[in-house]
Amino acid sequence: MPIVLADHQYGKAENRVVRFQRDSPRHEVVDLNVTTTLRGDFADAYLTGDQSKVLPTDTQKNTVYAYAKEKGVASVEGYALDLARHFVDDVAPVTGARVDVDSYPWTRAQVGGTGHDHTWVRSGGEVRTAAAAVHGKGAEQVVHVLAGLKELTLLKSTGSQFTGFLTDGYTTLAETDDRVMATSLVATWRYGPAALADGFDFDAARAAVRAALVEQFATLHSLALQQTLWHMGRAALERVPQAVEIRLLAPNKHHFAYDLERFGVQNRGEVFHADDRPYGLIQAVVADDAFPPAPEAWS
Amino acid sequence: MPIVLADHQYGKAENRVVRFQRDSPRHEVVDLNVTTTLRGDFADAYLTGDQSKVLPTDTQKNTVYAYAKEKGVASVEGYALDLARHFVDDVAPVTGARVDVDSYPWTRAQVGGTGHDHTWVRSGGEVRTAAAAVHGKGAEQVVHVLAGLKELTLLKSTGSQFTGFLTDGYTTLAETDDRVMATSLVATWRYGPAALADGFDFDAARAAVRAALVEQFATLHSLALQQTLWHMGRAALERVPQAVEIRLLAPNKHHFAYDLERFGVQNRGEVFHADDRPYGLIQAVVADDAFPPAPEAWS
Amino acid sequence: MPIVLADHQYGKAENRVVRFQRDSPRHEVVDLNVTTTLRGDFADAYLTGDQSKVLPTDTQKNTVYAYAKEKGVASVEGYALDLARHFVDDVAPVTGARVDVDSYPWTRAQVGGTGHDHTWVRSGGEVRTAAAAVHGKGAEQVVHVLAGLKELTLLKSTGSQFTGFLTDGYTTLAETDDRVMATSLVATWRYGPAALADGFDFDAARAAVRAALVEQFATLHSLALQQTLWHMGRAALERVPQAVEIRLLAPNKHHFAYDLERFGVQNRGEVFHADDRPYGLIQAVVADDAFPPAPEAWS
Amino acid sequence: MPIVLADHQYGKAENRVVRFQRDSPRHEVVDLNVTTTLRGDFADAYLTGDQSKVLPTDTQKNTVYAYAKEKGVASVEGYALDLARHFVDDVAPVTGARVDVDSYPWTRAQVGGTGHDHTWVRSGGEVRTAAAAVHGKGAEQVVHVLAGLKELTLLKSTGSQFTGFLTDGYTTLAETDDRVMATSLVATWRYGPAALADGFDFDAARAAVRAALVEQFATLHSLALQQTLWHMGRAALERVPQAVEIRLLAPNKHHFAYDLERFGVQNRGEVFHADDRPYGLIQAVVADDAFPPAPEAWS
Repeated sequence: MPIVLADHQYGKAENRVVRFQRDSPRHEVVDLNVTTTLRGDFADAYLTGDQSKVLPTDTQKNTVYAYAKEKGVASVEGYALDLARHFVDDVAPVTGARVDVDSYPWTRAQVGGTGHDHTWVRSGGEVRTAAAAVHGKGAEQVVHVLAGLKELTLLKSTGSQFTGFLTDGYTTLAETDDRVMATSLVATWRYGPAALADGFDFDAARAAVRAALVEQFATLHSLALQQTLWHMGRAALERVPQAVEIRLLAPNKHHFAYDLERFGVQNRGEVFHADDRPYGLIQAVVADDAFPPAPEAWS
Repeated sequence: MPIVLADHQYGKAENRVVRFQRDSPRHEVVDLNVTTTLRGDFADAYLTGDQSKVLPTDTQKNTVYAYAKEKGVASVEGYALDLARHFVDDVAPVTGARVDVDSYPWTRAQVGGTGHDHTWVRSGGEVRTAAAAVHGKGAEQVVHVLAGLKELTLLKSTGSQFTGFLTDGYTTLAETDDRVMATSLVATWRYGPAALADGFDFDAARAAVRAALVEQFATLHSLALQQTLWHMGRAALERVPQAVEIRLLAPNKHHFAYDLERFGVQNRGEVFHADDRPYGLIQAVVADDAFPPAPEAWS
Repeated sequence: MPIVLADHQYGKAENRVVRFQRDSPRHEVVDLNVTTTLRGDFADAYLTGDQSKVLPTDTQKNTVYAYAKEKGVASVEGYALDLARHFVDDVAPVTGARVDVDSYPWTRAQVGGTGHDHTWVRSGGEVRTAAAAVHGKGAEQVVHVLAGLKELTLLKSTGSQFTGFLTDGYTTLAETDDRVMATSLVATWRYGPAALADGFDFDAARAAVRAALVEQFATLHSLALQQTLWHMGRAALERVPQAVEIRLLAPNKHHFAYDLERFGVQNRGEVFHADDRPYGLIQAVVADDAFPPAPEAWS
Repeated sequence: MPIVLADHQYGKAENRVVRFQRDSPRHEVVDLNVTTTLRGDFADAYLTGDQSKVLPTDTQKNTVYAYAKEKGVASVEGYALDLARHFVDDVAPVTGARVDVDSYPWTRAQVGGTGHDHTWVRSGGEVRTAAAAVHGKGAEQVVHVLAGLKELTLLKSTGSQFTGFLTDGYTTLAETDDRVMATSLVATWRYGPAALADGFDFDAARAAVRAALVEQFATLHSLALQQTLWHMGRAALERVPQAVEIRLLAPNKHHFAYDLERFGVQNRGEVFHADDRPYGLIQAVVADDAFPPAPEAWS
């Protein structure tokens, strides 16, 4: 039986880097969870145990922390890209590198109505994500930058219906023209070449995408979570044309109206049970057709 | 061997109640996790299996959801108290009831610069807690109300030292006069009788306690997390005199400066590793000595 | 307002100690999560910031790891007791110490039908707990040893009913004479003086308590989870008389029969939905009345 | 800008099905977490909000529970395949279906040395996974069956080295010829056509793959986790030739020797700190080259 090593990659996951700017009394904080993944000429490490081409994951960790100072984190996307390029450009056996970064937002502590110079409260809620993927060396090199957010939990108390669906012998769901809709959104978008030019403002782009997503969720009268996702994705790409593809993953966090009539109490869409499991899970990929797909950016 | 049933209680944990106000187009949302615990004349349920005095936990659940409409949730503390009083006053075998509520804050979705009428984003971060404990019937009845917060994560990049500590043969820690200090605070305070009068504004009191805690953490030059906790607790009770006791539980979330000099890179308090475990765990109880302790409020 | 420091304690939580015995080619493994908590003359650390009596939590950590070699972990209970006694006896300001240990069981990897010398598979499932609490110095010293288990998930597909319960206007639960009963048990027992003599076999005692708990859950026809807990606790103390008190905390992990008749399918107690929340939460303390209660062992 | 819906799928996640066999007094239990995902002609649901081709996720849930009785769960793989085929074959707009199942093992409760008829203890530890993917209708239909395990935590106290690796300016790791190696393995294997014939024993195949994985981890002197994974994967495919591809994902759960020499205590590979984050993450795909790759089985 011709058994072969068909694919392989390795890296260091979840480096918890906290970086402060302390150049003035008003400090800044960046709080990251960084994962590196390398691809390349590592088959011998598997097949014969020869590690001579393997850059240890411990070294990758050291680099992650060192680059937070050497290159800085002016933008998380730029920091990820610096790291990914370093592994491919400076380490001979590496032919591809991916750097994924979760970023946790903090807000300045309020003291007497103003934000404190060196104390913060973790904002909780959504996590910002970013990734850089670099494939190939020299002139062949292809670079992708992704950004996103997760754990963005959205809820609307009306403005959502679900009617006219397909039925079969296992269907018991009643149609409804007024339901609660809630999700914990995972959104990841891929930037096109225009964003890789110097001076692109990744933070502003992120804020604009986020605003578009939230606004669509809020204002669209929803006929289904599917329809809502399409409009959210389209609005995001329209708002930030440098983003050329967005992938949306949305659990339908079910809220069931609690039957209070059994106790002589009316419930006009006021009291719900927020259920845990199971949950619907809806996915959509929305893309600007002017740009070719890039499956290698996502793996 | 005289084996006895020495103590017992039971209830329904983690009822996930979501309550909307829909009386006007501008809806309101309250998102709760409610746990009920009953004490009383239930020994037979254990010893002989006779359930005739046991109010099923399923009934407690129904009551939790029904009261969200019948009594409303004008304040979470008041809702907890309504429920706890109901169980003791209206269910004969119940002699004591405790209702614990976690409350998850939501923020109105921003659309065109203003908060949307019926769509929210979950704020994440800290969870608000409240509890009511009712012991005894009729004239003997004693009532306690607690409030609190958890998962309030605070961090300061300077203004913290740790020096002059006790050493023994296992001590290797170096003194430091400038370190990162971070914690994920759990604070719970007990209200005195003044807060149980009609019209007390629990939400305003909570905001004031929280502000006092955050301000002390930010502005006090810390000689140790212990000292910081004392000042936080004292400031909270001074700010809100209706709160007569506060319990603080604070993990010392260690941030270790990453040694970059090995790579020829300076690290002047700029790059840290946020470690997971182990962590210091510091506790303090701060009380207004004018009021008697109330251990039964906490069990 | 006379605001005071009413209580305080501190320590190092979740030290993840792994200890191997390698004295022969057949190694042994012990995998622990150790938490230390000290009480004593530490008020100045809070009130004035003077740390001169504070043994750093970092030192406690070092001691936890060092004792795993110096004193060994012949039994987890004995190791916890060695540590707790050390802090009280050897560190002047410490007047009380508590050491809590979670222990994760491993099973030898099977190779060709026999257990491997130095490779293990983590058993998963239940976690073993142990604690030692030492209060006071010299002749006044009082010592308590606790043991327990958590995440012991038990399920029976029949042999459980729930009937004859109290009802009120919020009761909708139907009686049932055949239901699924499941729980994820937390049990903690306190040893009396007989267990503190040299040579007591804590591992055998733990196994005997566990067997008694499981056997009662399995064989008792249950009239309620309350009744089951009482019989479990009593059987444990009868089986191991050196244990003088046992505390049981049992979520009622609800399994709801799925209504398949809507699809023309019979469901005779065969298909269930395992629900997450809410859940009943039943507690019992069972004690040997010949021994005095020891609330200080549990705080 | 020509913005398009580039891809989409939806389903019901985490249906917690518990299925008992009660045909004799000796009951059997199967405990599952089932996720369905459908692909097909659903673009209108997104683009126009027309739900007429959408089978509600609620209906998918009902089907998951009903099939546990109608088709049974003689093997988890067969149950997943029955469900996936049903969605594609019986629901017109569905062109592809994937059913993922986590299975939680239970062990009979021991009573007097024998396994109880209707009471079990959850085994904890590893979770068994299975998936069926069906693409296309009628003669075009392609079927894939996957099986796997996750949370299989393995540890060896010796027999592992890491030497001769690549170094650069960020490398500080020392070589070691005796270290602890531990991982929490995720393994997923794809069956070839031979396994889809009637009568294939999926449970026996799973046990054989697991045994091969564990034995290789235990007995191979490891030069790196990479090398260990290759040998594990190859051994699995050799042991069960009906499995034609296996994907292995292995965090390197670092155990750091604790420096006890500072306290005058020797540590000869006996006392370790089990660290949480960061961790190495090593991946390998091992395949039988006689069979074509099947990327559609994995998405």
